[in-house]
Amino acid sequence: MVILNRQMDLMHQARASSTFDPMDLTVIIYDNEETVLSRRAAFHRVERSLGLLDNMKLPHIYSGLDREGLYLEGVRRARVITSDMIAHDHSHFQWLNERYQICNSSPFGMNFLMFRRTVELQGTPEQQRDWLEQIDQMRINGAYAQTELGHGTFVRGIETTATFDVEADTFTIHSPTPTSVKYWPGGLGFSCSHTLVAARLITQGEDHGVHMFMVQIRSLNDFTPVRGVELGDLGMKMAYNGTCNGYARFSSVRVPRSSLLAGHAQVARDGTYSQTRTQADPLPLSKRVYSTMLDTRRNIVRCVAFGLAQAATIAARYSIVREQGRLMFADAAEEEVAIVMFKSQHYRLLTLIAQSYAILFAAKDFDVQYEQLVREQANNTHTRLPYMHAVSTGLKAWATSIASAGATEARKMCGGHGFVALSGLPEIEGTVSATVTFEGENYVMWQQLMTYLLKQVQASYGRQAVDAEVKEYIDGVRQYLDGGMRPSCTRECHKDDLFDSSTWLSLYRQRSQRVLAAAYRSYIETRNRTSAAEAWNTCMMSTLSAGQAYVEYMVLKSFIEWTSSTAPRDSPVSQVLSQLTCLFALVTITNPTLSFSTGSFLEHGILTTDELNEIRNHIHELLTDLLPNITALTDAWDFTDSSLCSALGCEDGNVYERLLSWTRQLPANAGRAVETAWRAPEGIQEFFRASRL
Amino acid sequence: MVILNRQMDLMHQARASSTFDPMDLTVIIYDNEETVLSRRAAFHRVERSLGLLDNMKLPHIYSGLDREGLYLEGVRRARVITSDMIAHDHSHFQWLNERYQICNSSPFGMNFLMFRRTVELQGTPEQQRDWLEQIDQMRINGAYAQTELGHGTFVRGIETTATFDVEADTFTIHSPTPTSVKYWPGGLGFSCSHTLVAARLITQGEDHGVHMFMVQIRSLNDFTPVRGVELGDLGMKMAYNGTCNGYARFSSVRVPRSSLLAGHAQVARDGTYSQTRTQADPLPLSKRVYSTMLDTRRNIVRCVAFGLAQAATIAARYSIVREQGRLMFADAAEEEVAIVMFKSQHYRLLTLIAQSYAILFAAKDFDVQYEQLVREQANNTHTRLPYMHAVSTGLKAWATSIASAGATEARKMCGGHGFVALSGLPEIEGTVSATVTFEGENYVMWQQLMTYLLKQVQASYGRQAVDAEVKEYIDGVRQYLDGGMRPSCTRECHKDDLFDSSTWLSLYRQRSQRVLAAAYRSYIETRNRTSAAEAWNTCMMSTLSAGQAYVEYMVLKSFIEWTSSTAPRDSPVSQVLSQLTCLFALVTITNPTLSFSTGSFLEHGILTTDELNEIRNHIHELLTDLLPNITALTDAWDFTDSSLCSALGCEDGNVYERLLSWTRQLPANAGRAVETAWRAPEGIQEFFRASRL
Repeated sequence: MVILNRQMDLMHQARASSTFDPMDLTVIIYDNEETVLSRRAAFHRVERSLGLLDNMKLPHIYSGLDREGLYLEGVRRARVITSDMIAHDHSHFQWLNERYQICNSSPFGMNFLMFRRTVELQGTPEQQRDWLEQIDQMRINGAYAQTELGHGTFVRGIETTATFDVEADTFTIHSPTPTSVKYWPGGLGFSCSHTLVAARLITQGEDHGVHMFMVQIRSLNDFTPVRGVELGDLGMKMAYNGTCNGYARFSSVRVPRSSLLAGHAQVARDGTYSQTRTQADPLPLSKRVYSTMLDTRRNIVRCVAFGLAQAATIAARYSIVREQGRLMFADAAEEEVAIVMFKSQHYRLLTLIAQSYAILFAAKDFDVQYEQLVREQANNTHTRLPYMHAVSTGLKAWATSIASAGATEARKMCGGHGFVALSGLPEIEGTVSATVTFEGENYVMWQQLMTYLLKQVQASYGRQAVDAEVKEYIDGVRQYLDGGMRPSCTRECHKDDLFDSSTWLSLYRQRSQRVLAAAYRSYIETRNRTSAAEAWNTCMMSTLSAGQAYVEYMVLKSFIEWTSSTAPRDSPVSQVLSQLTCLFALVTITNPTLSFSTGSFLEHGILTTDELNEIRNHIHELLTDLLPNITALTDAWDFTDSSLCSALGCEDGNVYERLLSWTRQLPANAGRAVETAWRAPEGIQEFFRASRL
Repeated sequence: MVILNRQMDLMHQARASSTFDPMDLTVIIYDNEETVLSRRAAFHRVERSLGLLDNMKLPHIYSGLDREGLYLEGVRRARVITSDMIAHDHSHFQWLNERYQICNSSPFGMNFLMFRRTVELQGTPEQQRDWLEQIDQMRINGAYAQTELGHGTFVRGIETTATFDVEADTFTIHSPTPTSVKYWPGGLGFSCSHTLVAARLITQGEDHGVHMFMVQIRSLNDFTPVRGVELGDLGMKMAYNGTCNGYARFSSVRVPRSSLLAGHAQVARDGTYSQTRTQADPLPLSKRVYSTMLDTRRNIVRCVAFGLAQAATIAARYSIVREQGRLMFADAAEEEVAIVMFKSQHYRLLTLIAQSYAILFAAKDFDVQYEQLVREQANNTHTRLPYMHAVSTGLKAWATSIASAGATEARKMCGGHGFVALSGLPEIEGTVSATVTFEGENYVMWQQLMTYLLKQVQASYGRQAVDAEVKEYIDGVRQYLDGGMRPSCTRECHKDDLFDSSTWLSLYRQRSQRVLAAAYRSYIETRNRTSAAEAWNTCMMSTLSAGQAYVEYMVLKSFIEWTSSTAPRDSPVSQVLSQLTCLFALVTITNPTLSFSTGSFLEHGILTTDELNEIRNHIHELLTDLLPNITALTDAWDFTDSSLCSALGCEDGNVYERLLSWTRQLPANAGRAVETAWRAPEGIQEFFRASRL
């Protein structure tokens, strides 16, 4: 790379200061070198095909497109990545697209995931034969239409009906009210030929609850909506504008009886409803659906690590080359310094980098447990499902909240320039932000984790079995409950070395147990006076606090275990990861991103004021130690310039020339906008004239 | 209002439950009834003129416009509000436009503010005569071009030059480097005929630093850029797309000597530079500029209160009519409940409402002090300027951070629907978010407050004069410093009534003093080992913490004083405001939005664990007390439906029918987008065919 200016030189110097080879970490992130190389090849093919290799050229997506233009660009990109996956038989873009956005942001993304998976899970073998190959080869494009205008999280509230007509041997799909209109499904607006519809199955006058139906919604000849189906797009969104999140209103649309995905529930020719449950498969459908949600959530956790890492990478590169002002009290003769040198920027940046790795390793750890669960479930052992489901909800809520707040923070760290679309940050921020509310709104997620944990504590008192995964942990909670709640600095762990990973882990564990004990006690006391539902609601803020503390303990545990086992001991990369883990543990205490559990280390006597001061000093040392590796830690994610799509974040550091070049290429600057603004009948010129009168 | 459906009925019921008349509070918000009525009339005229009175009609701004369309809609709106202000001689839209967005989001907004004010402040009487009337009547439209591609906060770094040519009697305005290109100024891209340019004044070979020059940039005949001036727009932004934040590159543009705003510095015909400082006006220009920034900041503080209140109003109305799910552990037979009934939503909502009022009253309180300062400065007394400047920086940083986080929170509280542009929330969130980084990036702002406070502590040790405004406060800080920093629950205030406003205020004061004392000590200790600049940087996170604690004390003080004095004692509205103040004080302790000072009440022994639990219980009671007034507290801001521009937030509560109606009216749903997506050469159809092969 030729160094053309001061910014590129600063970037080069920062890169040269690294103490480890980022490729060593890249291999850890993507599991092995083969995957790294195969991904690189796929990105290169796709970016070449999309014309994105020249990073001085304005990306088409930033050219000021209208709703339609943004969507068409989304189709163009989705075609290229999907073709590449089919042609080269890989799945690199299945969960994350060519910009590291979750696949539901692509108009074909849901076809391979929710649509395919539901057919696989709920279809009969015959239905699977009929549909799966068409899906895999993208001969059709399917949506997953569950959410309605008035019904999201609470699936049982769904209003769409599928009423069986025994004479015609058909179901009639119908949207009876405005609130029952399907609203939000990805790809539904313009791009899909088919959709699965979640509807209440009614036969012989009886409502059997929500089932899935395969419905064709557009003609494959002229793409017009099928008769009785009204389809449309929801318009602009904060992000996700490359896909057509849509609505669908069904007016008595008839579909054959075979449209019901009948793997687990059937309607016979005479309208009789029945459910299958063979001995070999004792798990009811609802439990299988839980497994799917669990799989989706673990993938979301992994995906948002990349989203946060992208934002942090852009902020890191910009902070290294952006020189602005001098340190307060600095000599007036001193030169301006790069903003990464300001402690607040330095602190925030490394916090975000540490969080992105924390999320990644938590996801990897959970993946291992998930794979074990899948093996167990294949052998009809489902005992770990409740625990895994609960952890997945907590992890999803925690990781998406941290990533979303972090992406916003990264954008703010780039000042005004971060606010402009060309920085790439508004798009990343919006995309990551969506994960907080989709696939289970986070406050609903937290509650699912907490009902599980509270029930486990309750079980331990009621002599019921406590799940093996949490047995020892819950025993610890009981100790606090039985011994009273007064804070006491019990020195259960050796605090001689406050900065040893086993110490922090023990502190996090104790803290989460004490917060859980407090929440449980408060719930029980309230329940003595009122209903369980009312007590739950009254104590919700305390239980949220316990949920957060539990997940933070889990995440730290995964982070420590992975960083200590994944790289050769005492290797440079291992040393840096261990510093990063420590930083994560300590800043989560002093500057928590989530505020439910604020102050709980002090409140429960886990840490003293003096120790807190020691922690602050230690954070300062860690920041200094990690400073030379900021570039390597972000380079390691192996993001292409095109995937970041940011004038501020390209690898070469050539920020200003690129930003100016992209700005000059904007089509609105070609002259027509000014012409119209001034000359139009209601334009500026006529206004000035009117003012002059 | 005719109640047509369940949502409208829920809204009606919520409104009926209020314990006070929202108009009583509206009058407090807008200072008097006359202003309320005059504003209402202005909004009605403007909305009628813009065709926005029918709230079932899709607002044009959401119709999926491209960059150019969004800008032209911005011009259309700016024309109407500006004409209304001129025709009806009012300034209701001077700081906040018809959507309650800060005026720099309108293409004519900067003309009346930064452009006008700078001419007023820095022009000679003759220059003022030449320009002010043209500005006021909008015969020209001016920008304020200070920020450059490579230079923002640090004004001294500006590179643009204005070199005096004595032969030609002209200045040559020039952008010597890519980093010197003016970048960001509002209206600069397409809309302005003139701009003030901040440039280094060079004459007789000497650089006299940054001065302001009046430069015409577009022909008033054909609107093309003046020769040597390259102008353009920055493209799409997170918000602010109704204006054309722009760039300008000057290539040796000659302007007459009279272009220099010469009220305080002149260049004589022979090129001699001189500065004016008359006896009657002993304040140097830099101090006058401080006063201007102070005025801008206090206005920003007030404006973001409205921004947050808008987001909270939409979230409140949606939470009241959105029924979703049942309480955890509720009987399966129970109906779904409105989401406001879930404690987390209830808690978050009232926190945001309380914060919006806290910011408003802090702004009002500061305004009173500012007006006094203006009176003093008119009499050449400037002693309070440093204090006022410092407080303005802290208030700006605090209020914009709280409002920005709150607007994001409000959007997330509306789930998926909040993510769609039609909800109005993405636009509000983006607009409020801009305030965090403009007009002084917040981390720079915090540091300005903290250098002031640290210098005051230092002065008290050095026998220098401590400013009268903080004398008593700093004495308190010294007591902690002199008496040692060990935490001790000193019971300096009567905690018998933990929930009396004087108790919390005292707790907030003590806490801020202790945190400041700790930050000061840590700074002094570090400075003994290193330079002042290095010590400052090392201790920055601790000083930020002290800054936050100080502002929170100030804000609470204003909130308490205003709510206790502004409404008749014991009136219903006074009671509600006092509950709201209490809620603000307590949730800022238990769930702080900003995390610098996390845990500091405990860390410094101000509160015990038992007291924290008492606080949590009391918050629960306050939430219950305030629940019936959520609608009244948000209605009181008097937002028109059109100003909220939200399918979720209209006053009638008719959320679903409006959202569906607006969605159906989207132009992209007229058919062409689907047609193109499927039939284009690289469209979906051809792709399906290719896949079929």
